[in-house]
Amino acid sequence: MREVEKWGIFELSVKGPEEGNPFTEQTIEGEFAGKWESVHTVGFYDGDGVYKIRFMPSFTGEYAYKVQTSFGGPVRGGFCVTEPGEGNHGPVRVKNRFHFAYEDGTPYLCLGTTCYVWDLQSDERIAETLTSLAHSAFNKIRFCILPKHYDFNLGEPRSYPFEGTPMDSSVLTRDNFLEYGNCSPGNSWDFARFNPEHFRHIEYCIRELGKLGIEADLIVMHPYDRWGFSRMSEEEDDRYWNYVLARFSAFRNVWWSLANEYDLMRSKTIKDWERFAALICKGDPYGRLRSIHNCIPFYDYSRPWVTHCSIQRQDLYKTSEMVGEWRERYGKPVVLDEIAYEGNIPHGWGNISGEEMVRRFWEAVCRGGYPGHGETYWNEEGVLWWSHGGTLHGESHKRFQFLMDIWKEAPGDGLMPCGDFWSEVCAVPEASLTDSVRAKDYYLIYYSFMQPVFKEYHIDDETGYRLSVIDTWNMTIEERGVVSGKFRVQLPGRPYMAIRLEKVNI
Amino acid sequence: MREVEKWGIFELSVKGPEEGNPFTEQTIEGEFAGKWESVHTVGFYDGDGVYKIRFMPSFTGEYAYKVQTSFGGPVRGGFCVTEPGEGNHGPVRVKNRFHFAYEDGTPYLCLGTTCYVWDLQSDERIAETLTSLAHSAFNKIRFCILPKHYDFNLGEPRSYPFEGTPMDSSVLTRDNFLEYGNCSPGNSWDFARFNPEHFRHIEYCIRELGKLGIEADLIVMHPYDRWGFSRMSEEEDDRYWNYVLARFSAFRNVWWSLANEYDLMRSKTIKDWERFAALICKGDPYGRLRSIHNCIPFYDYSRPWVTHCSIQRQDLYKTSEMVGEWRERYGKPVVLDEIAYEGNIPHGWGNISGEEMVRRFWEAVCRGGYPGHGETYWNEEGVLWWSHGGTLHGESHKRFQFLMDIWKEAPGDGLMPCGDFWSEVCAVPEASLTDSVRAKDYYLIYYSFMQPVFKEYHIDDETGYRLSVIDTWNMTIEERGVVSGKFRVQLPGRPYMAIRLEKVNI
Repeated sequence: MREVEKWGIFELSVKGPEEGNPFTEQTIEGEFAGKWESVHTVGFYDGDGVYKIRFMPSFTGEYAYKVQTSFGGPVRGGFCVTEPGEGNHGPVRVKNRFHFAYEDGTPYLCLGTTCYVWDLQSDERIAETLTSLAHSAFNKIRFCILPKHYDFNLGEPRSYPFEGTPMDSSVLTRDNFLEYGNCSPGNSWDFARFNPEHFRHIEYCIRELGKLGIEADLIVMHPYDRWGFSRMSEEEDDRYWNYVLARFSAFRNVWWSLANEYDLMRSKTIKDWERFAALICKGDPYGRLRSIHNCIPFYDYSRPWVTHCSIQRQDLYKTSEMVGEWRERYGKPVVLDEIAYEGNIPHGWGNISGEEMVRRFWEAVCRGGYPGHGETYWNEEGVLWWSHGGTLHGESHKRFQFLMDIWKEAPGDGLMPCGDFWSEVCAVPEASLTDSVRAKDYYLIYYSFMQPVFKEYHIDDETGYRLSVIDTWNMTIEERGVVSGKFRVQLPGRPYMAIRLEKVNI
Repeated sequence: MREVEKWGIFELSVKGPEEGNPFTEQTIEGEFAGKWESVHTVGFYDGDGVYKIRFMPSFTGEYAYKVQTSFGGPVRGGFCVTEPGEGNHGPVRVKNRFHFAYEDGTPYLCLGTTCYVWDLQSDERIAETLTSLAHSAFNKIRFCILPKHYDFNLGEPRSYPFEGTPMDSSVLTRDNFLEYGNCSPGNSWDFARFNPEHFRHIEYCIRELGKLGIEADLIVMHPYDRWGFSRMSEEEDDRYWNYVLARFSAFRNVWWSLANEYDLMRSKTIKDWERFAALICKGDPYGRLRSIHNCIPFYDYSRPWVTHCSIQRQDLYKTSEMVGEWRERYGKPVVLDEIAYEGNIPHGWGNISGEEMVRRFWEAVCRGGYPGHGETYWNEEGVLWWSHGGTLHGESHKRFQFLMDIWKEAPGDGLMPCGDFWSEVCAVPEASLTDSVRAKDYYLIYYSFMQPVFKEYHIDDETGYRLSVIDTWNMTIEERGVVSGKFRVQLPGRPYMAIRLEKVNI
């Protein structure tokens, strides 16, 4: 009997017809049942007469399946689900309303980056990106399934999702690219025939990310288009969505981002997005995380299918600083998938310093949110992390493991903002469903751009706290012994400092 | 015949009774008339049997006066008003809705600082402050008439405004000072008897500031009090206001700030503030600039007596950035009298860096506002510029003359924000009442914390612009020749850069 580990993928291939259009004329679907679950899933045509169906089991033990196709009799069989392997904690779920955890209970502190089309670059660049990620603190990456047409990213992708031929890109320049809208002449696509190689390659990328413990936040649609992929018909859109769902749903590290900057996709309406959301809820039987990313107006994150906010910077100055308000408004995890990019390109969203990026990260974390990174340093080669992946050139990414180490040591299910502080940002443990962790157990106080030479506190008269002074930029932690009652903390009078108070159990 | 220069002060002293309470029992008032104006003003008792009345003439030529007292016959006479002396441009007025100019038409670009009670320090400290101001770019200073009781400022003032004795201040510490409210026992004051020496000394300060070309933004009331001066009765308040008006109105460099943090003065209501405003409008016949400063909620700056907004920082992050919205809301000059203080004390409003202060200044200026400075560097002597004056220790003040020089060279009646720019701040000349200056004549574009390595612009196809690249922190201006049509500006990829485009007249 075949074996598959819990939260791994059981995949079945069936030979079938190649003639006609297998994508539209044939179907494959199946039932997968163990003692604790029974799941119906849909498969897909993978080219060359091969039909595939995938299933992710959530329990150990014996499973049976029955797969039915439009072209032959049912296929039955069974497999055994073993304990998850090392590093396999299952899919990420929302935990305690504002936070995340892997399905095995391991906390997941989301610290993402964005490389929109790293997956559509050369093998060498992809390997370089994976190496960069392996040496980083990132545990999520946002990227696109469809190729991207945008400033600094005007070349051809390694492959296209449909059969056909693209317009001639040699006419494009930084000055004229905006004129090439998403229905330029010269494109010739058959939206009813997918290019399986394109999707197989993205599965490779998802798997490689999985090996590194990184979640794949898949951007399924986006407006940066010269090929017409953002202007397909309802029928074409739905077929694309169902193909994506059939292929990628079973990967435990997949998240769904319906779109990047959905509001820039002029030919789609809220009705369309809600229809896609319904397709996900049907086509992804595992309930993977779902959101949608804005340019200017937020999508209504209170919609029931939205599992978490996926927020872009709201103005030049304040975004991380708004996390508390957004937590209250939506009652869901607040993921800041874009708080501007560290870099130096002309675009206002793409030229903040490393210091400012790290500041925004700490501001977000200390308010109970989850910040995301990106990098846009201009270079002669035109390889920008934000779009192509490759190598990190900035300063902020070097400081995230330090932040992560401190973050991980905090007690409870994540952090939340403490409203009792007037002019500093203070994180305390999230309001817990149990009594094991209390707000007064732990304080992480961040001074942002402020540079006090001392601060004074008075938590209460009884509790003793281990005091640490943290330099978030220079990455030092200075232990200052135990304090209690009214106490003063001497500080160096530099920006980007923080202190930590950990309750001493006596 | 006595001579006085235009916008100078004609002062008349009259001997009168010392017995009883001259402050409440006697009056002195007068008519001052020249060819172009006739002004009624009220005088005051200056102690030692001396009654005084002052008048500021606004026109040259011969004036006659008739002064009447409650204790003797009318005093008549005349004087001759000569042309203003060097550096005397008259009082500052609102010009073109959002800006200021001296009465002789010279533009006044308001660049202020705050030293709350520099005037109530020792002679040596006052001299030191005046020297600091003389070497600065500041042309306005906010300070209090009444002594101040607040953190880092717990000592005795050089004098008190009333006859009587203060509570014993030796009991005060940084830890307990807040417990000493504004009606602590141990104070013994006769609010019906002013201490003329206290007010004479403030006049000395106003005059010395005048010699330096600095406006005296007088804070008449404030909540930082342990003596009860913030909790007087209506009658006592009004008597104080009228005394202040009678003494200080004639000084051309006086501005009225009804209060600092009016909203913290719990015993005063909006009705009280409006009553004080009415007293000013009556008791100051010269129509000096009038405003009132908030802690949290703004006063209603749309009130007709308010000549300009006097704004305190609204949150930790954004204040200068709001200037455009406040201009639209109130239709008056937006003066940011507190955008936090450069320094390193524990209070969140008092520990921003010099870089951040200069950034806030440029943000405000490029949005058509008027930023204000202050400094709170902690030191062993406990002398903080913000409260005591003295010597400047920071970095921001060194960069204001550079800003002022650039600001002064801009055409028109001041700057206004240009909404056509997406991710940078851009100033253009204020919408003018004449055709002599047009928006497209001049652009001052500020990149704030952003660090682009280049930017591209296209104003139009015809106009030529002289391009300057400005490093606002390092204070360099690099001329880059004339540009037109679509052009690219190479930049150093550092924060705090700006560019200037000046139309070339061909």
